Amino acid sequence: MKFIKNTAGRMIPEEIEGKKLRPFKGAFADNGCGRRAAPPIPVSKPGTNKVLSSLREAIRATGLKDGMTISFHHHLRNGDYVANMVVDEIAKMGFKDITLFPSAFFPVHKPLIEHIKNGTIRNIQGSMNGPIGNYISHGGLPTVAVLRTHGGRVRAVEDGDVHIDVAFIAAPTADDYGNANGVDGPSACGPLAYSAVDWQYADKVVIITDNLVKYPLIPFSVPATHVDYVVKVDMIGDPNLIVSGTTRITRSPTRLKIAKIAAQFIKESPYFKNGFSFQTGAGGISLAITDKLARIMKKEGIKARFINGGVTKYAVKMLHDGLIDVLYDGQVFDTETIHSFKHDLYHAETPMTMYANYHSKGCLVNRQDIGFLGATEIDVDFNVNVNTHSDGLLLHGIGGHTDVAAGAKLAMMVVPSFRNRIPIIRDEVTTISTPGETVDVVVCEKGIAINPRRQDLIEYFKNSKLPLRDIHDIKNEIEEITGVPEKPKLKDRIIALIEYRDGTILDVVRQVDEE
Amino acid sequence: MKFIKNTAGRMIPEEIEGKKLRPFKGAFADNGCGRRAAPPIPVSKPGTNKVLSSLREAIRATGLKDGMTISFHHHLRNGDYVANMVVDEIAKMGFKDITLFPSAFFPVHKPLIEHIKNGTIRNIQGSMNGPIGNYISHGGLPTVAVLRTHGGRVRAVEDGDVHIDVAFIAAPTADDYGNANGVDGPSACGPLAYSAVDWQYADKVVIITDNLVKYPLIPFSVPATHVDYVVKVDMIGDPNLIVSGTTRITRSPTRLKIAKIAAQFIKESPYFKNGFSFQTGAGGISLAITDKLARIMKKEGIKARFINGGVTKYAVKMLHDGLIDVLYDGQVFDTETIHSFKHDLYHAETPMTMYANYHSKGCLVNRQDIGFLGATEIDVDFNVNVNTHSDGLLLHGIGGHTDVAAGAKLAMMVVPSFRNRIPIIRDEVTTISTPGETVDVVVCEKGIAINPRRQDLIEYFKNSKLPLRDIHDIKNEIEEITGVPEKPKLKDRIIALIEYRDGTILDVVRQVDEE
Repeated sequence: MKFIKNTAGRMIPEEIEGKKLRPFKGAFADNGCGRRAAPPIPVSKPGTNKVLSSLREAIRATGLKDGMTISFHHHLRNGDYVANMVVDEIAKMGFKDITLFPSAFFPVHKPLIEHIKNGTIRNIQGSMNGPIGNYISHGGLPTVAVLRTHGGRVRAVEDGDVHIDVAFIAAPTADDYGNANGVDGPSACGPLAYSAVDWQYADKVVIITDNLVKYPLIPFSVPATHVDYVVKVDMIGDPNLIVSGTTRITRSPTRLKIAKIAAQFIKESPYFKNGFSFQTGAGGISLAITDKLARIMKKEGIKARFINGGVTKYAVKMLHDGLIDVLYDGQVFDTETIHSFKHDLYHAETPMTMYANYHSKGCLVNRQDIGFLGATEIDVDFNVNVNTHSDGLLLHGIGGHTDVAAGAKLAMMVVPSFRNRIPIIRDEVTTISTPGETVDVVVCEKGIAINPRRQDLIEYFKNSKLPLRDIHDIKNEIEEITGVPEKPKLKDRIIALIEYRDGTILDVVRQVDEE
Repeated sequence: MKFIKNTAGRMIPEEIEGKKLRPFKGAFADNGCGRRAAPPIPVSKPGTNKVLSSLREAIRATGLKDGMTISFHHHLRNGDYVANMVVDEIAKMGFKDITLFPSAFFPVHKPLIEHIKNGTIRNIQGSMNGPIGNYISHGGLPTVAVLRTHGGRVRAVEDGDVHIDVAFIAAPTADDYGNANGVDGPSACGPLAYSAVDWQYADKVVIITDNLVKYPLIPFSVPATHVDYVVKVDMIGDPNLIVSGTTRITRSPTRLKIAKIAAQFIKESPYFKNGFSFQTGAGGISLAITDKLARIMKKEGIKARFINGGVTKYAVKMLHDGLIDVLYDGQVFDTETIHSFKHDLYHAETPMTMYANYHSKGCLVNRQDIGFLGATEIDVDFNVNVNTHSDGLLLHGIGGHTDVAAGAKLAMMVVPSFRNRIPIIRDEVTTISTPGETVDVVVCEKGIAINPRRQDLIEYFKNSKLPLRDIHDIKNEIEEITGVPEKPKLKDRIIALIEYRDGTILDVVRQVDEE
C-alpha cells in the first residue's frame, strides 16, 4: 500500500479496495467540477397504488439485489426501530453484501452487528455512534468504512460518489402517495432534513410510517413525487427516545465555567453585534452558552438574525422573545420545539445541502458568524478529533462539526480540559476530523487559546481581561494533572476513512490492538 | 419531409430541424426510461459575494454565449418587466441566436418581436399568449417553436430534452445570497412555482429583484444553494398587472348558465362526496363553478379534501370557511390570496413537478377527482384545442390543461357553444392540445356531452334530468346558428410543435396564409 502525506500531515493510501483516494489538500482547495449524479426517470400514471402490505413486499418491489446500497436517516436517533427492522427483513430474505448508508447509527442499532457477522452487511458508510463503531474498531467489518460530515454525505450522493439503490425513510406521518413529515403522529421528530438527499437521488424510495393519513399530507418534508412505495408498520420508534422532554443545561460547575468564558469571549468578539448569527446544539455546554448569550443579548440590546442547528426549546424561546429573527432547523431535540417547527413561519427546515454542502452554490454554514462545537481531542495545531477516543475506538460521527468550522467566521471549540483523567488538549489528535486551519479558538476551563493563524483575532483581544493563553501552555498545565497521554495501540489495518467535506481523505482510522 | 400519423390522427414529421420526433402514441403509452439531466457541480466557499451591480455584469458573469438557452417564469404575468429587460440587455451586448425558454409570455412581451427580427432570438420554447404567438403564426420566427404543458415543461428539463444555460428569475423579494420568494415586497406575486425546475437544473441562475432584504430570507421559494448571482433593479414589474385586486365571477347570463349546469353535473356525479378534490382557475366560468360548488357543498354538508390550481380569494374563503382542508397553489391571482399563501399552514406551494410531471413518481393531477377546463375548440372526438383560434393563429399556451385532463377522474370542458359566431364544438379542431381520450365531459349552455369512452359515466347519469346529449347533436345545433365553420387557410410550413406531456408530438401548428 502506497501512502501520500496530505496537507493535514496524515498519511493517506493512494488507493484502497480498488478505489483511488484523493488526499486532503486544504479546506478550500477543491473548486468543484463535472456534473451531478442523475437519478432514473420514473413515470406517474393515475390510479397507481403505492401502499404495500408489508416491508417484505416493499423490499421485493424495489428490486433489491445482493451488493446494493441502502440508506437511512437518523431523525429518530436512539429511538429508531426502522433500520433494524429493514435489515432484519433483508437478512431473512437472504440478501448478502449490502452497504448501509445511514446519516448516523446509534446504540439502538447494535443488533446490526449480527448482520455484519452473517454476511448481510458488507460495508457501512455513515456515522457510527457507540457499539457499531466499537465493533468495527476491533476489525469486525470486512471492508473499510467511510465517515463523512453532514455536508459531505449529501455532496457524496449529489456528486455520484455514493449511489443509493434504495432509501428506506422512517416517517412519523405519511399519506398513501408518499408525502411524509416529521411533525405529526406519535413518533414525531420534527424535520426530516437528513433524508432529503436520499429521496432526491435514490433509485427507489420506501416510506415506512406508523401514522398513515389522508392524502394530501400538509406540511410535508418528503414529496410524493419522489416516493415509490409506502409501508405501514406498528411503530417506527420509541417516542421517549426520539425526542427528550428534558433537554437541559449542564449543571457541572466546570462546564458552566467553560460556558461563561465562551459567552464572554463571544461578547467581546467583533462578531457580537445586531444581526449576528450562531450555531447551537443540544449538548450541555452548548445549551449553557446559548442561555448565557441570551442573557447578554437581552442586557446589551443585541438581536441575532438567525440561529442554525439542532434546535431546542431554548432557541425557540429566543425566537418567541424576539431575540432572534429566524431559526434554521436540521433536527429537533425536544417536544416543545416540534410545535414551533410546525407552526412558526420563521422556523424553517434545513436540508443538509442547504446547511452544509460545499458543492452547492452557497450553504448556510458559510453565513454563520459563530459556531461553538465540541471535541474528543484537540491538538496544539488546532486539529480536532470528534470521531475516536484516545484509546483509538471509533465511537462518534462527525456531524456538522467540520462543515461549521469551515464556514463560520468564529469556530470555537468548547471543551473540558480533560475527561476521566484523559487530556483533551494534546500534542497530536488520534484522528483528524476537522483540520486546524478551520478552527479559530479553543475554550476550556483553564483558558482560551486563539489559533495563531488568526492574528487578527489575537490583535483584537490583546487588551481583553479574558484568560487568553498559548495552547501549548494550556496543554502543559493539563498534562501536569493527567500525565502525558499514551498513544493508542493500533494495528496497521485501516478500518475507516475520514472523508473531508469536499470528498478528499483527511485521515484514516486503524484497527485497535487488543493485546 | 416524411410524416407519420400519430394515435391522435395527426401527421407528424419524422424529424424537424435535424431533431428526430417521437409521435404521440396514447396518453399513457410512455413508461419512462433512462436517467435525468445532471446539473454542474458548483462550489460554495465562505465570503463569496453574489450581488452584482448591474444586469449586464450578471449576464457577463454567467458566461452567456451565442446560441445558448435562457429561461424565465411567468408569475408576474402581464406585469412582468424582467424578460424584456434581460433580452434588451443581451441584445445590446451583441448576443445572437438565443433560445428563450419561458414558462409563458404575455402581451407585455411584445417588444421581444424586435429581438427576433434583429437576430438576438432564434427560437422560443414555451407558451406564447398574444402578440408573439401571432407574430410566429405569420412565420416570424426563423425556427420551429415548441409548446409544452406545465408538466411537460418540467419533464423536458428534468429529462434533459431542454438544457437551460442561464435561468433569469424575477423575484419579488430576495436576500444577498439568492434566497427568494414571491410573497414579500412591492411586486409580490405569491408562489414562484414555475421557476423551480429552472433553478434546479440551469447551469447558471440569476435572481433579479426589486426588494433586496437581509439574509436569510424566510420563507423562500428559491434556495440560495442554487443561485449564482443576485441583481437589484428598480422594478421587476407593474404590481397592478401582476395581481388583480378584482378577480371576479362572470356576469354573463350564458356563462352563469354553463356554470350552473356544470356544478349540477358535479353534484350528481360519483365524485361529489366528502373528501373529494378539484382543480379551479381564475377564469370567469371557473370562478362561477367554484362559487356554485361552494354553495352546494355547504347545503349538502360536503367537504373537499383539497383544491389545486391557480388560486383566488374564492378558494381561500373556502379554506377559511372549512369547506376544504388543503389548498395547493401553483399561482396566485389576487392580493388577498398572497396573504393566505404566506400565512396559512394548509395553503402550500406546488412546484410544477409536483403538480403535473408525468416523469415523476406521482404528481398531483393524478389525485384530482375533478378538473374544469376551458377550450378554444372541441371536436366530436373530444379532442381539445387551447392553443390556436379557428383562424389558425397561435395565441395561447397549453398551461396545465393537458396534464389535468390526463390526471383527473372527471375532466370537464366548460365552454360557451360559440364565441363571436365561431362555433367551439366542431368536426375537427384546428390544433389538438389535449387528446380526446383524456376528456370526459363537455359542458356548454346547450347541454352536456359525455365522452362515449366513459360508458360508466353515461350509465351513471342515465336517469339524470340534466340536458345530456350526443356531442354531434350539440355541434349540429350550433352550426345551425353559426353555419359550418371554414377551415383556416394555412401554409405547409410548420411553425410550432405541440408536445404532449410525455415528450411525444401531439400536433403541429402551421403558418397562416395571409392571402
